[in-house]
Amino acid sequence: MSSSSALTAYCANIETAWIDYNGHLRDAYYGVVLSNAIDDLMDQLGLDAAYRSETRCTLYTLEQHVYYLHEVKLSDALIVENLVLDCDLKRIHLGSIFRCERVPEPVAVAETMLLHVRQAEQPGSAPFPAAVETRLEGLKLTAEDRGAFTPSSRKIELKRR
Amino acid sequence: MSSSSALTAYCANIETAWIDYNGHLRDAYYGVVLSNAIDDLMDQLGLDAAYRSETRCTLYTLEQHVYYLHEVKLSDALIVENLVLDCDLKRIHLGSIFRCERVPEPVAVAETMLLHVRQAEQPGSAPFPAAVETRLEGLKLTAEDRGAFTPSSRKIELKRR
Repeated sequence: MSSSSALTAYCANIETAWIDYNGHLRDAYYGVVLSNAIDDLMDQLGLDAAYRSETRCTLYTLEQHVYYLHEVKLSDALIVENLVLDCDLKRIHLGSIFRCERVPEPVAVAETMLLHVRQAEQPGSAPFPAAVETRLEGLKLTAEDRGAFTPSSRKIELKRR
Repeated sequence: MSSSSALTAYCANIETAWIDYNGHLRDAYYGVVLSNAIDDLMDQLGLDAAYRSETRCTLYTLEQHVYYLHEVKLSDALIVENLVLDCDLKRIHLGSIFRCERVPEPVAVAETMLLHVRQAEQPGSAPFPAAVETRLEGLKLTAEDRGAFTPSSRKIELKRR
């Protein structure tokens, strides 16, 4: 079982095929890096391959919101810091901060809602094992720290100026 | 210049490398398909490679929200229907509906905010050419049709039941 210490950040190098005609990391590949960072998070939480194979339980992504804040280049490495903004018996509301050394501010932030699911003919949501629940509760941000996670997800709309 | 007719849907086959350990299309690859569908949209709008090379103008993605509604399998083909939910002189609020033949309902929906940018040492937003603006205005959904685009993007949060 994973210890109750803080989560380790995930680091990814940028692949040449991920750069678009604008010369920057294509929007979708922030998502690919995040998806891999969430796999890494699952390993850290004890929801790893052995767990998935034993229990047929896994995480499904329900919704995701990404803000693209700075251009990322081939020469950058992306660091993803995952934060448990909130959780309940079956769900994790994950916040993710993307950084690269060249830029002082985050280059992107994301929020993702993840559901713990038992796979079957008819997959259904399932409670986390007690140890995972305890770990998540220990990782959950305080209301104040959660409030500092910005820009926060929202309804996307054009505001007339 | 593109005609003022409706947009053509974008179709993608699923690649083996896009399937995750759950046996389904990995969340991030909905984003890769959407990114390619937006390239196709740019071609349809006249914001194609020739335009980008002549003007140094392109679209940047500011934010994106995806709802994952149904599992997608390797044997499915994904069809993405793009809708202009709203637009102004420099921005497109795009709605995207993901379908596959096997499932009657959409398998995912997305909203994306796109900004027209002139690339330079300091990239800056730039108005669309008049013909593109006219085309976008012609494609823009009515308020009623926009209201029918659901689930709509929102603040992601755990609601206690």
